[in-house]
Amino acid sequence: MTRTLAALLALSLTVPAAATPPPLTLEQQAEDALANDTNAYAFVEGLTTEVGPRQAGTEAEARGRAWAAAWLKAKGFAKVADEPFMMDTWVPGDIARARVTAPFAQDLAVLPLGNSAATPVGGIEAEVVFFRTVDDLRAAPEGSLKGKIAYISHQMRPAQDGSHYGFAGPARWVGAGIAASKGAIATVIKSIGTDHHRNPHTGGTSFPEGVTPTPAGALSLPDAENLERMFARANGRPITLKLELNPRRIGQMQSGNVVGEITGRDPSLPPVLLACHIDSWWNAPGAFDDGAGCAIIAAAALKVKQAGQPLRTVRVLMAGAEEVGLFGSAAYSKAHIDEPIAVGLESDFGADRIWRFESNFRETNPDLHKRLAAAVARFGVSSGTDAATGGADLNIVRDQKGALIDLQQDGTRYFDLHHTPDDTLDKIDPAQLRQNVAVWTMVTGILANEANPILTGGVVPSAPKIMGSN
Amino acid sequence: MTRTLAALLALSLTVPAAATPPPLTLEQQAEDALANDTNAYAFVEGLTTEVGPRQAGTEAEARGRAWAAAWLKAKGFAKVADEPFMMDTWVPGDIARARVTAPFAQDLAVLPLGNSAATPVGGIEAEVVFFRTVDDLRAAPEGSLKGKIAYISHQMRPAQDGSHYGFAGPARWVGAGIAASKGAIATVIKSIGTDHHRNPHTGGTSFPEGVTPTPAGALSLPDAENLERMFARANGRPITLKLELNPRRIGQMQSGNVVGEITGRDPSLPPVLLACHIDSWWNAPGAFDDGAGCAIIAAAALKVKQAGQPLRTVRVLMAGAEEVGLFGSAAYSKAHIDEPIAVGLESDFGADRIWRFESNFRETNPDLHKRLAAAVARFGVSSGTDAATGGADLNIVRDQKGALIDLQQDGTRYFDLHHTPDDTLDKIDPAQLRQNVAVWTMVTGILANEANPILTGGVVPSAPKIMGSN
Repeated sequence: MTRTLAALLALSLTVPAAATPPPLTLEQQAEDALANDTNAYAFVEGLTTEVGPRQAGTEAEARGRAWAAAWLKAKGFAKVADEPFMMDTWVPGDIARARVTAPFAQDLAVLPLGNSAATPVGGIEAEVVFFRTVDDLRAAPEGSLKGKIAYISHQMRPAQDGSHYGFAGPARWVGAGIAASKGAIATVIKSIGTDHHRNPHTGGTSFPEGVTPTPAGALSLPDAENLERMFARANGRPITLKLELNPRRIGQMQSGNVVGEITGRDPSLPPVLLACHIDSWWNAPGAFDDGAGCAIIAAAALKVKQAGQPLRTVRVLMAGAEEVGLFGSAAYSKAHIDEPIAVGLESDFGADRIWRFESNFRETNPDLHKRLAAAVARFGVSSGTDAATGGADLNIVRDQKGALIDLQQDGTRYFDLHHTPDDTLDKIDPAQLRQNVAVWTMVTGILANEANPILTGGVVPSAPKIMGSN
Repeated sequence: MTRTLAALLALSLTVPAAATPPPLTLEQQAEDALANDTNAYAFVEGLTTEVGPRQAGTEAEARGRAWAAAWLKAKGFAKVADEPFMMDTWVPGDIARARVTAPFAQDLAVLPLGNSAATPVGGIEAEVVFFRTVDDLRAAPEGSLKGKIAYISHQMRPAQDGSHYGFAGPARWVGAGIAASKGAIATVIKSIGTDHHRNPHTGGTSFPEGVTPTPAGALSLPDAENLERMFARANGRPITLKLELNPRRIGQMQSGNVVGEITGRDPSLPPVLLACHIDSWWNAPGAFDDGAGCAIIAAAALKVKQAGQPLRTVRVLMAGAEEVGLFGSAAYSKAHIDEPIAVGLESDFGADRIWRFESNFRETNPDLHKRLAAAVARFGVSSGTDAATGGADLNIVRDQKGALIDLQQDGTRYFDLHHTPDDTLDKIDPAQLRQNVAVWTMVTGILANEANPILTGGVVPSAPKIMGSN
């Protein structure tokens, strides 16, 4: 029997503390998480199996929040609550059809983008105008798309740091609005993704003030490539597309932020805030985005607790309504802005290994930055020099101009799964998931036992660096 | 300039034959196909782009046949025709929904199996009974499924030779019929496939004489695994499923077999028959299954012709209605049974490389077998000792007790794509596709220039060894 196993067995017995050996140190707990953690996988397995997709503002998200709150309570988190807020709610409907009608008749796999308008019942049919990039669309003359359907392509390639999302994402984020402003009656885009499966990637789009929203959909990559081959083969003949989508806005609906904590020895000290989001798009079970993130932060908080009650409270924030507009992040900041946060971290980039650590206090608190960097190096995590900007659900920390840490995950395959039906449990590599828990355990434990203020000056960003996973 | 390139350029000029260098030998043509063939890729690109899915008996299949016939004519094939036949036709409808209603509400991705009945409008809802394998279902008592929905799992793992299809396939081929005979009102199966994407694998099922067909669907593998996890988490609570499918039979419809030939120097000799099928399931663009097969045989026939007019005619058969019951194969045999075939080969296992050559005349015509084996070894093809049984569309050869060759493709990833929407052009590796054309060029060229009878005794099978790709 190894010393670690003996210690673990001892911990599981409900005998007086005096009879048990001392708890594992933080380092030992992190090593144990790397080898043995089951909490994170159990969380994401349970959430995806018992709830599945969790579109913000719907009963499915409410079930997801209730499931998460029950899990936190069962695991011994304190002050577990589902803090409600109201939000303007968009739902996708149940009709999503696209068919090229000429010159080559063929159905294309399509899904609406968040905030898409509906087509008339029965659909709309119009000529498609091809744009290689959103910049090409920007260059199109005003009015030139009148009565047409814009198609926007891009050349997205996988990147470990997710930087490709910044290059390709605008086609989704703003493409439909630009096309509408030039007269287009609808827009379809090549999915912002890197896989080749017939499952379109949804995600939010937005229309500028004064521009009436139009129907906007994403084609799967194989379908988008097929459409582009049709342009190549059409020899100038017009390509016509029939599109039918029936999303709608259903007004103000309730969402909520699930919170809980490992209470610190000195609850008067500002807490460490660990964030994720509990909602997902309606089409995605949300294993990677972001069931895994919630699983990682909750499992790490439990490991920190097992190393002994921390000095500071460790609070988890499983935000609602991230995907549709960061409503949970805004609501949490509004409700708690007067409660200072010591430092914020978010896990929202899948379940693959962490490869880089960054903070926004490398220059102003170099001692702590170096201690953290040294502590995670053993798990294969290098230390970067950019300033951390925090995840989407950390508005409160940015609003407080507080301390932020980014534990960057390998995003190479993240955009194979992002916002698609393929974001399922089987995509999670349990070993990489455990590495996340190990790194989070080390970092959270050090921060929660730091007596001094964590941010001691420096510039705090007002928004995440990457549009993030929403 | 290399000698090969010079020769190719020379071939492309329309100058008198006397002024051109001699054509490339068969070996040189095969080597050239390996490096440079564009016909095969162009065929499958065109078919999937300009037509797409080609469900047997529908207008889409008719467009596919017309497309293929036009392509063959344009490339100089002789006697191109679309030989019609009538067939009892099943179509999938446009509603395919499955939702677990208790204890964990969640939609599951489902598609109907070929020959599935429809549910009532609005669907049916019933308790699901779990069967680990079709053998477990067989062991269930008569009447024990009355009013229930049967779910059948399996443990399919990839295999290079496709043998896993034989292990797992019965869950689809006969599972619904067995369940119906025991009282089940519907059946859902774990897709017969090896991928983890949310695209169910369809395919034919059959109901025994006297058993009324029931609704029968396939869940994608992630959905099937999710359902199985629900059983593990339900602690004995019943799992109820709501299923809605609306396929229907539309009576006798027309399909057809597309044929064409490279006419031999002695048309009185029995021809070499190269087969594939042009139809696909409605949900699959049919790049791997079997656009690639038709592309390979057509491209190889063209390369054989470029090496000089062969002694025997090389006939291509692009059969209709293979997927739904080998109707094209039966119709071709019936129409042409009195016209002896020298030898038959089929390409219908995707687009990955050929790794094994087998014939059914290894013992009775060892000289020819050895010459063929030696000729393809250069392309990484080994020689097997099993007797070839031919592909699904070679009924005529089996009915004539004729000579057969199997050029076996690597099937490791075939069942990732088989009968799914993901069977798209991007899955084709052009280099492996060209290796197929090279091997087919060598084998077809040798056979088409063989003066002696090819089968000189031996046992001829009455059916393909593997249920094949249908």
